[in-house]
Amino acid sequence: MLVIGERINGMFDDVKAAIKERNAKVIQDLAKRQVESGASVLDVNVGPSSGDPQGVMKWLIEVIQEVTPATLAIDSPNIKVVKGAFEVCRNEAIINSTTGQKEKMEVLIPLAVEKKASIISLTMDEKGIPRDADLRAEIAVRIITYAGECGLPIENLYIDPIILPCNVAQPQAGHVLETIKQVKILSDPPPKTVIGLSNVSQGTKDRELINRTYAVMAITAGLDAAIMDPMDDDLMNAVITAELLLNKNIYCDSFLKAYRK
Amino acid sequence: MLVIGERINGMFDDVKAAIKERNAKVIQDLAKRQVESGASVLDVNVGPSSGDPQGVMKWLIEVIQEVTPATLAIDSPNIKVVKGAFEVCRNEAIINSTTGQKEKMEVLIPLAVEKKASIISLTMDEKGIPRDADLRAEIAVRIITYAGECGLPIENLYIDPIILPCNVAQPQAGHVLETIKQVKILSDPPPKTVIGLSNVSQGTKDRELINRTYAVMAITAGLDAAIMDPMDDDLMNAVITAELLLNKNIYCDSFLKAYRK
Repeated sequence: MLVIGERINGMFDDVKAAIKERNAKVIQDLAKRQVESGASVLDVNVGPSSGDPQGVMKWLIEVIQEVTPATLAIDSPNIKVVKGAFEVCRNEAIINSTTGQKEKMEVLIPLAVEKKASIISLTMDEKGIPRDADLRAEIAVRIITYAGECGLPIENLYIDPIILPCNVAQPQAGHVLETIKQVKILSDPPPKTVIGLSNVSQGTKDRELINRTYAVMAITAGLDAAIMDPMDDDLMNAVITAELLLNKNIYCDSFLKAYRK
Repeated sequence: MLVIGERINGMFDDVKAAIKERNAKVIQDLAKRQVESGASVLDVNVGPSSGDPQGVMKWLIEVIQEVTPATLAIDSPNIKVVKGAFEVCRNEAIINSTTGQKEKMEVLIPLAVEKKASIISLTMDEKGIPRDADLRAEIAVRIITYAGECGLPIENLYIDPIILPCNVAQPQAGHVLETIKQVKILSDPPPKTVIGLSNVSQGTKDRELINRTYAVMAITAGLDAAIMDPMDDDLMNAVITAELLLNKNIYCDSFLKAYRK
């Protein structure tokens, strides 16, 4: 499974402070540590409270690129911020994210095609987040169809069924597992699937236990990628072990070490 | 998920010694601790080296019944030992186990019906353990059909797809998950499914990590019961959390405590 490191996000206090002080070292340390822990992609999000999101996104990308060639997931709901990011981004990129809303798709999917980037699309539209798996799959079909029309290679499309906190929307965790399975039969070859794992445990006690348990469940359902904390050792061990038991890695006594890049 | 405690088994050194010395206290402590940890059923197995398996099985059942009314899984490949157990067993019982072999089914399934017991049946026959899920499902169909002919209530039938150690038969872990899903569509209502969880990690390092990861995967596939160690806290937490995320228990901040009986 593709591990997308979640830690360079202005909602975390250390990153928020580093952005305010333009402290490159804090950001670069987080970038290196996440890659060393097993992340292949680094999510980059300026956070909710930045006064200059375009400038901050560019600065984050520039300082990260100084220390790693890892793929960057440009994570912003703001189309201008995403477009601006490509002015400085030399590493491979994933746009995070579009939705099924026409106005967004029509700008961001062609942008992904133009920049040879991948793109994550949430299964939501103007009506909000669907209440079940069937409605999520319906939106996924619209996204897959439009992406095909734009000439986006299907392997560059990630469908995100949107996981919600289990303490406020408990049935959704099961609906998302069902959606992951359904997406895999919507087209041949199918798009990839991704979740923002930590959302499932937002506001709960035992966050790490809930995160790693749900990661294993989603991998069992066929998940291809997760935005998560690769520095959570127990979580990484659970992910590696689940892939072993699905026969994706070969067993050896040191498999936990062997499959951490 | 139904937790069947695995610890009263003569293959464990403490139980083997207790059997040799007829030390009831060791057995009774294990029985009580497993029930307190969340087991609803206790597996009882005299182990491989007992000189008098019939006598030992009866003694184990008698001393366990003195301290708990828990259901007992009479675990023996020896038909005489199983039959003898019913001479003393007053608690509810599960016969563990028959296979798809005609000679075994024809004795043990009618016995389960007569004793109003449940029965576990392994998906193997005279040809051995099948190499994939389809062949396992084929044997399961034979078992379900014969059990129906004998008048066994379907809810008293547990199909065990036989999990093998991942270090020697790695693809089998995936085949067993697939079998668990398939068994659920073989009849309506379907039989239950069960696995001997610890087998998956036999001979590996990181046994507990592999056990609890596979437990979550099997629950995601639809598993109804597992023979496992309820005193492994991390394993029980993983099981409880997986069921929470499938919306089988209601979230509260103390859910780990609340769903341990």
